Amino acid sequence: MTTTTPALSVPEAGARFENIDLTRRDLRPDDVRIEITYAGICHSDIHTVRGEWGERPFPITPGHEIIGTVAEVGSEVSRHSVGDVVGVGCFVDSCLECAACKDGEEQFCERGVIQTYASEDYHGELTYGGYSGQVVVRDHFVVKIPDGVDLAATTPLLCAGITTYNPLKRYGAGPGVSVGVIGMGGLGHVAVKIAAALGADVTVLSRTDSKKEDGLAFGAKDYRATEDESVFEDLAGSFDLLLNTVGDAIDLDAYLGLLGRGGTMVNLGAPSDSLTSSAFSLLTYRRSIAGSMVGGLPQTQEMLDFCAEHDITATVELISADQVDDYYDKVVAGKVRYRAVIDASTFTGAA
Amino acid sequence: MTTTTPALSVPEAGARFENIDLTRRDLRPDDVRIEITYAGICHSDIHTVRGEWGERPFPITPGHEIIGTVAEVGSEVSRHSVGDVVGVGCFVDSCLECAACKDGEEQFCERGVIQTYASEDYHGELTYGGYSGQVVVRDHFVVKIPDGVDLAATTPLLCAGITTYNPLKRYGAGPGVSVGVIGMGGLGHVAVKIAAALGADVTVLSRTDSKKEDGLAFGAKDYRATEDESVFEDLAGSFDLLLNTVGDAIDLDAYLGLLGRGGTMVNLGAPSDSLTSSAFSLLTYRRSIAGSMVGGLPQTQEMLDFCAEHDITATVELISADQVDDYYDKVVAGKVRYRAVIDASTFTGAA
Repeated sequence: MTTTTPALSVPEAGARFENIDLTRRDLRPDDVRIEITYAGICHSDIHTVRGEWGERPFPITPGHEIIGTVAEVGSEVSRHSVGDVVGVGCFVDSCLECAACKDGEEQFCERGVIQTYASEDYHGELTYGGYSGQVVVRDHFVVKIPDGVDLAATTPLLCAGITTYNPLKRYGAGPGVSVGVIGMGGLGHVAVKIAAALGADVTVLSRTDSKKEDGLAFGAKDYRATEDESVFEDLAGSFDLLLNTVGDAIDLDAYLGLLGRGGTMVNLGAPSDSLTSSAFSLLTYRRSIAGSMVGGLPQTQEMLDFCAEHDITATVELISADQVDDYYDKVVAGKVRYRAVIDASTFTGAA
Repeated sequence: MTTTTPALSVPEAGARFENIDLTRRDLRPDDVRIEITYAGICHSDIHTVRGEWGERPFPITPGHEIIGTVAEVGSEVSRHSVGDVVGVGCFVDSCLECAACKDGEEQFCERGVIQTYASEDYHGELTYGGYSGQVVVRDHFVVKIPDGVDLAATTPLLCAGITTYNPLKRYGAGPGVSVGVIGMGGLGHVAVKIAAALGADVTVLSRTDSKKEDGLAFGAKDYRATEDESVFEDLAGSFDLLLNTVGDAIDLDAYLGLLGRGGTMVNLGAPSDSLTSSAFSLLTYRRSIAGSMVGGLPQTQEMLDFCAEHDITATVELISADQVDDYYDKVVAGKVRYRAVIDASTFTGAA
C-alpha cells in the first residue's frame, strides 16, 4: 500500500501553506493506517505554525482533530479492522507504562507524550498531522467513531470535545451545578453543549451579544455580554465552575469574583501572557485556578460515546485545502462559527 | 461583673501600642465572658495595625488566637460553663443561617463574617481582639480546649492550626501523599507538625538551612534550602500538595514545577503583590493554585481535638505585654521561633 500522501505543509514560522507529498512510515506491528476523511483546524495549530508557542521543527503539517477510515492494520492490531471509522486526537504515542499512562492520562506520560505533529517520536522521527490524505498511528491512540454520527461535525471533538469534557467531568458538572463558559469560539461552543448535556446550568460569558441566539440554542440557560461590566456585580459569587476558553489574557480577578465558595476556574486556553491575580481573590471563598490539557484515550472514547448518545457535535464550516490560509485569519479574528473542518479529499499534493 | 479590662491598643496605622482600659459589652443571652490567659501574635495582626491590608477602623486591639477561662455566661448558653477552658479564633459572629454557615464554613458567611477585631459587628459596634484581659464572644464562636494541653503553646492553633489543618484535610494529606511546606515560620511549622501527624510525607522548603534540625524534629522527612536552585530540578513533579505559608510573593512557576499530576498549591499567606504564573505551569500535569482562609467552627474543634490527641502544639516564645512592639519587628524579621504568645496577666491597663 502506498506510503505517499498529499498534504499541506508550512515551511517556516509564519509562512503560508504549500501542497506537498508526504511520506508515511511502513506499518509497525501495532500501527494502523488511516485514510483521512476530515481534519479540524484548532487555534493551537495556528499558534504553532506561526511560532507563537516557541521554536518548533519545520516544516510542519498540523492537524490533531482527525477522522478517517482504517485502510491497513499491523500484524498485532486487534482493536481496529480495515473499514472501521476511527479518530485521532492530540497525541500519537506514549510509554504506556508509567503511572499517568496506566491511569489513562497519556497526555501526562512521564517519558513525554508524542504529539500528533511537530513532535520528535521515540524513534527519532518527526510527526506530521492530519492536514493530509493519510496518517499512520499506533493502535492505542486510535479511537472508534460511533455509528451514525455526522463525521465532519464530530471531527473537532477529538480536541475541543475532550478538552472541555475532561474538566467538566473532573469538577462535577451536572444537575444543580452552575457552569460559566468564558468565550464561545471553537472550544467554548462545544463546552456549552457538553455541559448542558451533563445537566449543568450553563451561562455563556461572551464579550458581546452577537452569539446570544446561538448560545441559548446550544443549551445555555443564560448568556451575558461581559462588555457590560455590571455582569460582574450581578453574577458575583454565583458559579461553581468557570471554563476559560479564551486564548488571550483576561482580567482574572474580575472573573474569579464570579466564583462561589470552593469554586474553580479552569484555564483551557494558553495565553502567552502570564496569569495574574490577587491572593485575596483566591482566599475569598477558597477559590482555585486550575489548568487542564486535553484528556487521555479512555476518556476520549467515553466522550465520543457520550456525544453520540446526546447528539452533540461541533458546529462547523466545511472548507477545502485551498481555504486554510484564509481560515487561519478568520479563526484569529473570531469569524468562524464555530470550527473549521477541512475536507481531506481536497488535498492535491505537490504540483 | 466588671466590663472594663486592660488591653493593648494601636491608635493609628503604624503607631506603637498603648496600654488602655477597654470596655467589653454586657452579656447578651448567647454570650460568654472569657478571662483571657494567653493571646498569640499572628503576622496578620501586624499587617492590619500597620495599615498594610488597607484602611481599618482605629484604634485597634488585635489578637485572634485566644485562650482563657469562662467567667460568666448568658442566660441561653448551654455549651459552656463558668470555669471551662476555652478558645476563640479569627471570627466572633456570622449569620448562622446561610449555606456557608450551615456547612460549618462560617468564615465565608454570606452576610459577612465578623472578625475578632477591627470589624464592625451586626450591632454596629467595633470588635476588639485578644490582646486584653477579657473578651465577650457569642457562644457558637467559642471552642473547647481539650484537657491537659499546654495552654500557651496551644493558643496559636486557634489561627495557625486551623489555617493549615483545613487545606491539609481538604486536599487529602495522609499516608502516601507528598506534602511540601513552603516557609517554616508561624504557620509553616504548625503545618509541618499537623501534616506529619496525618501521616503524609512532609518536605520543608525553606530559604536557608537554618531551621533544618527543627524541621526534621517537627516531623518532616526531608528539608531543602531553596536558595540552592538545584532543588527545583531535583524535586520537579514530586509533590501532591504544596502549602505556601510565605507572606511575600514567591516565584510561582518555580514552585508549581514541583507539583506532580493533579497537584495543588494552596496559598495561605496573602501577599499584597499579585500572584503571577504562566498558563503552561498549570496546564502541565493539570495543576491548581487554590486559596484557603482559616476554617469553620466545627473543624476548629476537630483540629484542637486532633492536636491534643497527637500531642501537637505550636513552638512558642512566651512574652509580656511590654515586649509586643519589639516582637512585631522580630516576627517581620523572621526571628521568632516560631510563634509569640502574650501572657495576658501582664496587661496593665491605662496608667
